[in-house]
Amino acid sequence: MRAFNISKPSSKLATAIDHKINTKTKPIGALGQLEDLARQIATVQQSLTLELNNPHMLVFAADHGIALDGVSAYPQEVTFQMVMNFIAGGAAINVFSKQNGLSLKVVDAGVNFDFELQNALINAKIDKGTKSFLREPAMSLDQCSEAMEKGAALVDDIANQGCNVIGFGEMGIANTSSAAMLMHAFTGIPLADCVGKGTGLDEEGVNRKLAILQKALEKHGVADEPLQVLATYGGFEIAMMAGAMLQAASNQMLVMVDGFIATATFLSARQMNAHVQDFSVFCHQSDENGHRHLLEHLEAQPLLQLNMRLGEGTGCAIAYPIIQSAVNFFNEMASFESAGVSEKI
Amino acid sequence: MRAFNISKPSSKLATAIDHKINTKTKPIGALGQLEDLARQIATVQQSLTLELNNPHMLVFAADHGIALDGVSAYPQEVTFQMVMNFIAGGAAINVFSKQNGLSLKVVDAGVNFDFELQNALINAKIDKGTKSFLREPAMSLDQCSEAMEKGAALVDDIANQGCNVIGFGEMGIANTSSAAMLMHAFTGIPLADCVGKGTGLDEEGVNRKLAILQKALEKHGVADEPLQVLATYGGFEIAMMAGAMLQAASNQMLVMVDGFIATATFLSARQMNAHVQDFSVFCHQSDENGHRHLLEHLEAQPLLQLNMRLGEGTGCAIAYPIIQSAVNFFNEMASFESAGVSEKI
Repeated sequence: MRAFNISKPSSKLATAIDHKINTKTKPIGALGQLEDLARQIATVQQSLTLELNNPHMLVFAADHGIALDGVSAYPQEVTFQMVMNFIAGGAAINVFSKQNGLSLKVVDAGVNFDFELQNALINAKIDKGTKSFLREPAMSLDQCSEAMEKGAALVDDIANQGCNVIGFGEMGIANTSSAAMLMHAFTGIPLADCVGKGTGLDEEGVNRKLAILQKALEKHGVADEPLQVLATYGGFEIAMMAGAMLQAASNQMLVMVDGFIATATFLSARQMNAHVQDFSVFCHQSDENGHRHLLEHLEAQPLLQLNMRLGEGTGCAIAYPIIQSAVNFFNEMASFESAGVSEKI
Repeated sequence: MRAFNISKPSSKLATAIDHKINTKTKPIGALGQLEDLARQIATVQQSLTLELNNPHMLVFAADHGIALDGVSAYPQEVTFQMVMNFIAGGAAINVFSKQNGLSLKVVDAGVNFDFELQNALINAKIDKGTKSFLREPAMSLDQCSEAMEKGAALVDDIANQGCNVIGFGEMGIANTSSAAMLMHAFTGIPLADCVGKGTGLDEEGVNRKLAILQKALEKHGVADEPLQVLATYGGFEIAMMAGAMLQAASNQMLVMVDGFIATATFLSARQMNAHVQDFSVFCHQSDENGHRHLLEHLEAQPLLQLNMRLGEGTGCAIAYPIIQSAVNFFNEMASFESAGVSEKI
């Protein structure tokens, strides 16, 4: 597997960045989180003039063996059906990406279906779904490395097209189960606080899901190596997204992190290289039970809290204009001096 | 003063609206607040195909006599200086309106400055600032009615240009003091919970502001008539915005409510006609102390919580793409049936 060399962004511009923000025609701090975001983007881009170029959404889809063990409210075939829906342009992520000018790419990371060759779908299939981690590791270490490598290569292709901001989404029936296991494994937060209703389980369904995941945990435990944990409990879309996030940070791109599954994926990436967080913006706090705890663990302040729980990258696509607003106020607002406005008494 | 005839929107489409939302290719409820918002807009527009046409931001500016009594961190002249900044295009609201395609109109509702005639500024001046309500009512009842009438007429002009969604912003040094008084008067929430740091007072400054407002409250009390309360403690920009909000609702337009001052203004309008709330979207929960309590009192769920405290309508302009997202998913997303996706097990 490639080494992900992520340099911590230099703080040499910090004073100049603060000065630029604090002399804008507004009280100090009055743009709240937009100011934090502008500070982060300026640090990532090492510049006092910010740019969001050729923004992309990359949505990874894959199937999960654990789906057949009764952890989801929807049948496994919904994964491929939703991929068809992405290709046809009818899903939420299509609508929001189009609205906000994000180029959307859909990736078959391991869906249990033979798609015809289509321009709108990138074939990066590792296998036709993972094994059920109730019985055996979801994938081999080799498959996990291969998925990460493919995700990284896809990001390099997009970076070569001049993109410097990229969001990641996912589709995979049962993948909140993988995300819950990864969250528990990497944070130690009790499994019950990591498990939620996913696409819409009732209380009984959530209890059944928790019991199944508890059994899997007893079987496999938690390995020391992040790659091993990811291979045991992850999914192909999750491993591929983890590689993609790490490579995006290596390329000094701004990384948009979506909801619960994307954040659990981010957590896995962070176990491999902590600097990925310097490049990452947390777009939406999902309604899924574990996400709030996970964001608190990461000390991450999400841009949106709209009670959504859909995945697909929808939180990124909806939050993108806010990121643009942070860039725009930083670049375009007048200063007290240039506008002739009096400062604080 | 004109009668504001606001009809409660009919619920006759409610079942059809719910059906359209619930058959989209996503789990029921998975788009969270966007679904509530789409439901509201469809009810306001009485249609199963939604449109946001010719969106506008209307920013009202005025001065406040109370500013000279030491309630603000900035001198009064900042009001006219910021109006000049709006005209020149250098303020935050310029940047965000431009970004998101909102036509921005700036209104002199009563600034203490003689502006030269300029196309970019609408002259609706009632007087050169209010009186200090520490000593006498801020304005006469006639002035208050005149301001509301002018606000309503401006909205009618904009509606005649095909606009069906409008946000309101304000600029007026010391107007968090007016907003705090209106909030206390109309909700009964203790004054201390209505008073905050405004543009950036320190703790001592907030205590001084509270003591001054307490004294004003002892002097004038709380009248029974909303118009009288508004005249006593309001500002020209606030009264004008209240008339504008009521007229926008009369015209069945969607009303975007900004931060603390705009929400206190909305509260005043609601005292005059409760149906205005059916047409209103609360865009941003401000960092100003009283705003959270006020939104709770209104049972309003804001779209954003970005810790901003700037006013000018910035919360509306930044939230606008989210409102567009609600419209777009409702209009454009595929249904389970049309996309051939399986429903819940």
